Amino acid sequence: MSVAQEFEAANANYASAFDKGHLPLPPARKVAVVACMDARIDVFRALGLKEGDAHVIRNAGGRTSDALRSVIISQQLLGTREIVVIHHTDCGMLTFTDEHLRNKIKSELKQNVDQIAFLPFNDLKQSVVDDVEALRNSPLVLDVPITGYVFEVETGKIVKVDV
Amino acid sequence: MSVAQEFEAANANYASAFDKGHLPLPPARKVAVVACMDARIDVFRALGLKEGDAHVIRNAGGRTSDALRSVIISQQLLGTREIVVIHHTDCGMLTFTDEHLRNKIKSELKQNVDQIAFLPFNDLKQSVVDDVEALRNSPLVLDVPITGYVFEVETGKIVKVDV
Repeated sequence: MSVAQEFEAANANYASAFDKGHLPLPPARKVAVVACMDARIDVFRALGLKEGDAHVIRNAGGRTSDALRSVIISQQLLGTREIVVIHHTDCGMLTFTDEHLRNKIKSELKQNVDQIAFLPFNDLKQSVVDDVEALRNSPLVLDVPITGYVFEVETGKIVKVDV
Repeated sequence: MSVAQEFEAANANYASAFDKGHLPLPPARKVAVVACMDARIDVFRALGLKEGDAHVIRNAGGRTSDALRSVIISQQLLGTREIVVIHHTDCGMLTFTDEHLRNKIKSELKQNVDQIAFLPFNDLKQSVVDDVEALRNSPLVLDVPITGYVFEVETGKIVKVDV
């Protein structure tokens, strides 16, 4: 059985008890979360979100430069007015460099990806600072509260980063 | 109180019962999910995911072209070997055009964003087909099972799209 088939079975169970069919499109709590795609972060549970509360944007590292299109749509078309950025301990982005990954792809897939910035980092706290500042400095992002955190995969805690 | 402060309070509760501190970095079920950022989709609950199971990549529309960096990292560095793409009914991406959003930003933020493709669509099923095919045709994505779904925000069900 593929994982997709397992998802279908689990979803049948979820849908059988579903009572959120009335929720509107704009997020009720007017917030967009930008977080890493890491499998250990259940963003809804970790932040106390319910269906309808918040936009959840996730990518490798939770990098805000790679989330800009989504943040603009979230603010301009769907009215969010706060942003929360979440990176985490033991992140895969701490384990490689652009050169390393580009060489792996060149060797194994025979493709040149020198034009792709994979956005790894070597300092976790600094990566949160950089990503919050990138949003604050962008002329395409509204002047709204932006808060950065490190999620500790060892404890489940979010720890605020001063920016 | 900012939403971020509400998240901190909810997270203290989550962390107090946290027992997942031992989980490894690579996703246990070797799958990456690409889904829309929409507030009404709790990807973990809707698909029966637990912490540690799957990479969850989310952006406006769940567009795979905007998820490519993350998918490559997921496959090349963290061993995922299946992809599930999820778009949904009542999506914000059905409500605008690039021209509309570019003009809004030009008018309100005084910024020229003609170089940004916001990736809206006007046919939901076709958008899933397009995004699954884009992954299948990419020389940077491994030849793995890729399945596309429409999540119905009215019912909580995922409905498979034939691609």
